[in-house]
Amino acid sequence: MALAPERRKVIVDPFFRGMGEIFSDVDAERLAQLFEVVWGRDEPMPLDEFEAALPGTLAVVSSGWRYGPILGRADELRAILTVGGGWPPELDYAQCEKHGIRVLSAAPAFARAVAEMALALALACSRNLVAEDRAMRAGTERFLSNADDLDTFHVLGKRVGFVGFGNIGRQLRRFLEPFACELRAYDPWLTGAYLREEGVEPTGLVELLETSRFVFVLASPSSENEALLSRDLLELIQADAVLVLASRAHVVDFDALTELVLAGRFRAAIDVYPSEPLALDHPIRGASGAVLSPHRAGLTKEALREIGGRVVDDLDAIAKGLPPRRLQVAEPELASRYVRTTTVTTPRPGAVAT
Amino acid sequence: MALAPERRKVIVDPFFRGMGEIFSDVDAERLAQLFEVVWGRDEPMPLDEFEAALPGTLAVVSSGWRYGPILGRADELRAILTVGGGWPPELDYAQCEKHGIRVLSAAPAFARAVAEMALALALACSRNLVAEDRAMRAGTERFLSNADDLDTFHVLGKRVGFVGFGNIGRQLRRFLEPFACELRAYDPWLTGAYLREEGVEPTGLVELLETSRFVFVLASPSSENEALLSRDLLELIQADAVLVLASRAHVVDFDALTELVLAGRFRAAIDVYPSEPLALDHPIRGASGAVLSPHRAGLTKEALREIGGRVVDDLDAIAKGLPPRRLQVAEPELASRYVRTTTVTTPRPGAVAT
Amino acid sequence: MALAPERRKVIVDPFFRGMGEIFSDVDAERLAQLFEVVWGRDEPMPLDEFEAALPGTLAVVSSGWRYGPILGRADELRAILTVGGGWPPELDYAQCEKHGIRVLSAAPAFARAVAEMALALALACSRNLVAEDRAMRAGTERFLSNADDLDTFHVLGKRVGFVGFGNIGRQLRRFLEPFACELRAYDPWLTGAYLREEGVEPTGLVELLETSRFVFVLASPSSENEALLSRDLLELIQADAVLVLASRAHVVDFDALTELVLAGRFRAAIDVYPSEPLALDHPIRGASGAVLSPHRAGLTKEALREIGGRVVDDLDAIAKGLPPRRLQVAEPELASRYVRTTTVTTPRPGAVAT
Amino acid sequence: MALAPERRKVIVDPFFRGMGEIFSDVDAERLAQLFEVVWGRDEPMPLDEFEAALPGTLAVVSSGWRYGPILGRADELRAILTVGGGWPPELDYAQCEKHGIRVLSAAPAFARAVAEMALALALACSRNLVAEDRAMRAGTERFLSNADDLDTFHVLGKRVGFVGFGNIGRQLRRFLEPFACELRAYDPWLTGAYLREEGVEPTGLVELLETSRFVFVLASPSSENEALLSRDLLELIQADAVLVLASRAHVVDFDALTELVLAGRFRAAIDVYPSEPLALDHPIRGASGAVLSPHRAGLTKEALREIGGRVVDDLDAIAKGLPPRRLQVAEPELASRYVRTTTVTTPRPGAVAT
Repeated sequence: MALAPERRKVIVDPFFRGMGEIFSDVDAERLAQLFEVVWGRDEPMPLDEFEAALPGTLAVVSSGWRYGPILGRADELRAILTVGGGWPPELDYAQCEKHGIRVLSAAPAFARAVAEMALALALACSRNLVAEDRAMRAGTERFLSNADDLDTFHVLGKRVGFVGFGNIGRQLRRFLEPFACELRAYDPWLTGAYLREEGVEPTGLVELLETSRFVFVLASPSSENEALLSRDLLELIQADAVLVLASRAHVVDFDALTELVLAGRFRAAIDVYPSEPLALDHPIRGASGAVLSPHRAGLTKEALREIGGRVVDDLDAIAKGLPPRRLQVAEPELASRYVRTTTVTTPRPGAVAT
Repeated sequence: MALAPERRKVIVDPFFRGMGEIFSDVDAERLAQLFEVVWGRDEPMPLDEFEAALPGTLAVVSSGWRYGPILGRADELRAILTVGGGWPPELDYAQCEKHGIRVLSAAPAFARAVAEMALALALACSRNLVAEDRAMRAGTERFLSNADDLDTFHVLGKRVGFVGFGNIGRQLRRFLEPFACELRAYDPWLTGAYLREEGVEPTGLVELLETSRFVFVLASPSSENEALLSRDLLELIQADAVLVLASRAHVVDFDALTELVLAGRFRAAIDVYPSEPLALDHPIRGASGAVLSPHRAGLTKEALREIGGRVVDDLDAIAKGLPPRRLQVAEPELASRYVRTTTVTTPRPGAVAT
Repeated sequence: MALAPERRKVIVDPFFRGMGEIFSDVDAERLAQLFEVVWGRDEPMPLDEFEAALPGTLAVVSSGWRYGPILGRADELRAILTVGGGWPPELDYAQCEKHGIRVLSAAPAFARAVAEMALALALACSRNLVAEDRAMRAGTERFLSNADDLDTFHVLGKRVGFVGFGNIGRQLRRFLEPFACELRAYDPWLTGAYLREEGVEPTGLVELLETSRFVFVLASPSSENEALLSRDLLELIQADAVLVLASRAHVVDFDALTELVLAGRFRAAIDVYPSEPLALDHPIRGASGAVLSPHRAGLTKEALREIGGRVVDDLDAIAKGLPPRRLQVAEPELASRYVRTTTVTTPRPGAVAT
Repeated sequence: MALAPERRKVIVDPFFRGMGEIFSDVDAERLAQLFEVVWGRDEPMPLDEFEAALPGTLAVVSSGWRYGPILGRADELRAILTVGGGWPPELDYAQCEKHGIRVLSAAPAFARAVAEMALALALACSRNLVAEDRAMRAGTERFLSNADDLDTFHVLGKRVGFVGFGNIGRQLRRFLEPFACELRAYDPWLTGAYLREEGVEPTGLVELLETSRFVFVLASPSSENEALLSRDLLELIQADAVLVLASRAHVVDFDALTELVLAGRFRAAIDVYPSEPLALDHPIRGASGAVLSPHRAGLTKEALREIGGRVVDDLDAIAKGLPPRRLQVAEPELASRYVRTTTVTTPRPGAVAT
């Protein structure tokens, strides 16, 4: 039976995320009632304050780990809860496990936002929404009575391939269920038995690219998958297929992708780029067969608020001596292979919202 | 037990649809094997030939009913299978029923295409895909690190209202199932008990418009619902809601809709217009808060081929003395209220595909 | 838009069902508010009263049709709503259709009750619940540590065959969905395309019996399927299979079934018998490999109350000029083939509830 | 990308499970191809042989832990895979974690078997299958034409309460999905947010017992929940409710349960007992309102074979440096609270299979 938790000390230093961005009023209130919150401001916690606060602290909520070595100082630390979607490369996951410190990632908070966006991009691409809207505004659209020269197709019933099948893939599979697609996945970090249990058929990367009508690139960036989708592999994609790039540009040879899409070899919906902001003269900006999105898949108010909710839920569990279940627990085998790739930086000066 | 069907005579005159457009090779072969096909060409059947062929004919496959009175001549006619999505107003449905002639509509063949498109439009609108793509091409997009001034939101978990809940609504409900939305429907042709059994909560139109974050307008055009969504009603829609117009413009006060969307009162995704092609100077073309589509929801190769498949399936059933189940059987109460509205006409001269 | 219905006259004569058995207080109240109810008592309506009441009557709610010819007297009759699960053979369905009179069956009210029971029987049989309970009471059970000589198996993942795929089959398919079974169906009244759309693979009867681990006999009794499952066909069933007989004994050669189950050829769960009450000395009563149920699949309070709810819903629709959608509308092709088989009669004198 | 695994040494000592009982031919073959298997026989491995084999061993597959202290000897040990459904109390889970040794339980292999059985028991109890079968054999059944004195009810649409919501509960929730029940759960080891995400509403134990029509007792036995369902709590259960006891008798006051069921206070389906084999004169054996099963919920050939499949899958993952995902990884917080309760022992002499 759960004991009433004592009011333990928790360091909350989520910058670059804002406190109000991730914590709803309800969650901020729960946090304050359950814990003695240290810091909790919208700027980075000074390292000396952090150092002073660490002894006796049950958990740290942070955006990464910029605080130096943990051991010897963090006598009561049980968990590090990161508010990003990846695994901070600065942490030594095996050491954390050895000392009974769980490292948690907010990836689950983004899974539904990114999966919804991946589906939205796939539909927009295959049903040609963006180009048709452009034509309507230019007055060049055609109202037709037959489908002879239509260049659109359904997601319904098509073969779909997932490159990487983690949090996002599992959620996207759920969204795709009513579409009766044939689902395949390539993920070298997962066994075939696991994939089958999750409702997708394991397949090799070559076969996946050659046979899928929709290819969802969802793999987390790792030390092993830089430009995994090389030019040679990208060239295997079917002429009328749609590639949705929703995790990180790290995973593809972006120059090759750009050329192939510009050449009309297949369609693509792209949310992430090798450098962001993307250079104004990058040729992908002119690709008529592409749907382009400025890294928006996970960035929604709903997803950010979900981070805060999951953080408080898991802090609550940890304080009660229970395992956390709402954020994702680092597995040293995988977390240590994660690499941080180019992510969002400051806006280009003068850029205007649309 | 099914008897082997004799090879009965069937008139196939689907023009304005093309034979190859609706019948796959497999279905064309099935049709030819099961029946003696009369006409079956890509132009309208001359009326005198029709007249001559009618006696002894089991069924007519056509795009409407331009053949004059039925009775007295169609001694063995058991079914009229129309290849459009509505009910030809030229037919007397009560008379057909009285004479044991079933009238069938191809609406079910379009339901999945239109429902998929309705979801695609809703996602494109709420996740702001079209405007962001436009910004990427103009170089005015912003790569952000927080969501503070983002103007996007999820479909996930929102309240959704269906105006009209027929074939398309039922299919869209299935697509929306993984999104855990709160589903409401307004449909005066259906009882509350039926709607609840179908998994949506019946609701009044005013409440639906006032409380839904997504409003899907899916009602078939009838003699009762012209401009059902009047200016007054449209003004009830929430500031941050998305209206998806996917059935017919007939159902809304399109001038009011245009003004409200131009004024930024809510967002809209629009596939159908009061006249098509839409006038080049129609102000809706400039609405930045809209996603515009030139009547493409049902017009896919997959949907058209589904018509042919369902036609052959049901001809097969009818020849075996079984009830048809793949097309929709006219209910006189409702079919007779259907009106034909502006639909696709010839392309504007000089219009260019995009 | 629906007009407020006038308060039309409806004859309600559901005997052998009781008024309170089928109408909840809420539904009885709705009925009284919406209609001028004629009769509405727990005994059969005298024929002369019926005769006198018929002119001006909108609809008749009855358990069959014992009132003689309809036409000429039923000037305003639009619907006959039967409170049983089948189609009264006394009615001429083609004539009814010709005169615009819909005949409705309460079969949908029983579908969930029967489908739930069919699943319950299948599970009880394959997991050996009844025999193990008997052993526990006799003190002859064995508590084991391995499964070597266990004679039980899962429904999960097995191949399932439906003999007949109507209301009950469709509902049972939904119940079976989480069990990831391979679903096959044999139904000569349905086309393969329809079955596939409903999520089951059409198959021949021989193949179905030879390959299914669970065989659900759900076919309505018709003039075409008496003893459809003959001795020869029953002998095709696998040694370790379970046959669930849930619709009517009419469909099987019951003597052959009895012998095969007594001989241990396969297992069976049986809810219906050639004559009911079943003779006390019928050998099936001693079959240890059977689960026996005294015709209880559809007979639940919930199902009976659902009849009343659906009756009022559809009367309401009909009065509003809308098609009924909660009961099942007779299709003349099929309704006329239905036969009434031995059903429940009076209890054996002296029989005691258990 | 996965590296080809080297052929590492694995000790396989699953006794009391048999090798052939848990490993299908296919899995036995996979095991032999992937690993150098040490022991692998149907009797307990002698401790000195174990001791000698431990250095260099990657993983141990066993039914518990009877090998004494681990550390210092198991230099390359990465995982202990237990073939039972619980957590061996002999292991120090915190120490294992500190040394990077994952402890895995075969609980997931049993989840579907037990959940299927729990549903089977619930249906058998509410639809009264066992008592009606008994009546059919005694000739005391009644064939009825109305439901007035029927004592059966549906699972469909009822309120269901889970006491404990782990592997089995999650699977049972899936089976119950088509039944449209209102699902509540009490589990002090899980937060409300987690339960809601899993599709059940968290609730207190008192409210759960007072309001549920079906109560599923699925909690693992722990140091905290002995006789959790005390007499006082059991007395809260509704008069017409069904209690399904499927995890361990440890969790209930079995004497009180027996008395209440004998007194007809509610119904129960019971698979587990305080001591097994159950005493021949235990009064529960005579409870007519109970369905009794001799600890059969998890004991199926399919479940046992699933153990072996999952063991090989996870050994494969571990050898490749990947996290195991098919068995359940011990969380020290919870695994250490598990207690071993009376489980299956040798059959009573002279007991005969039924």
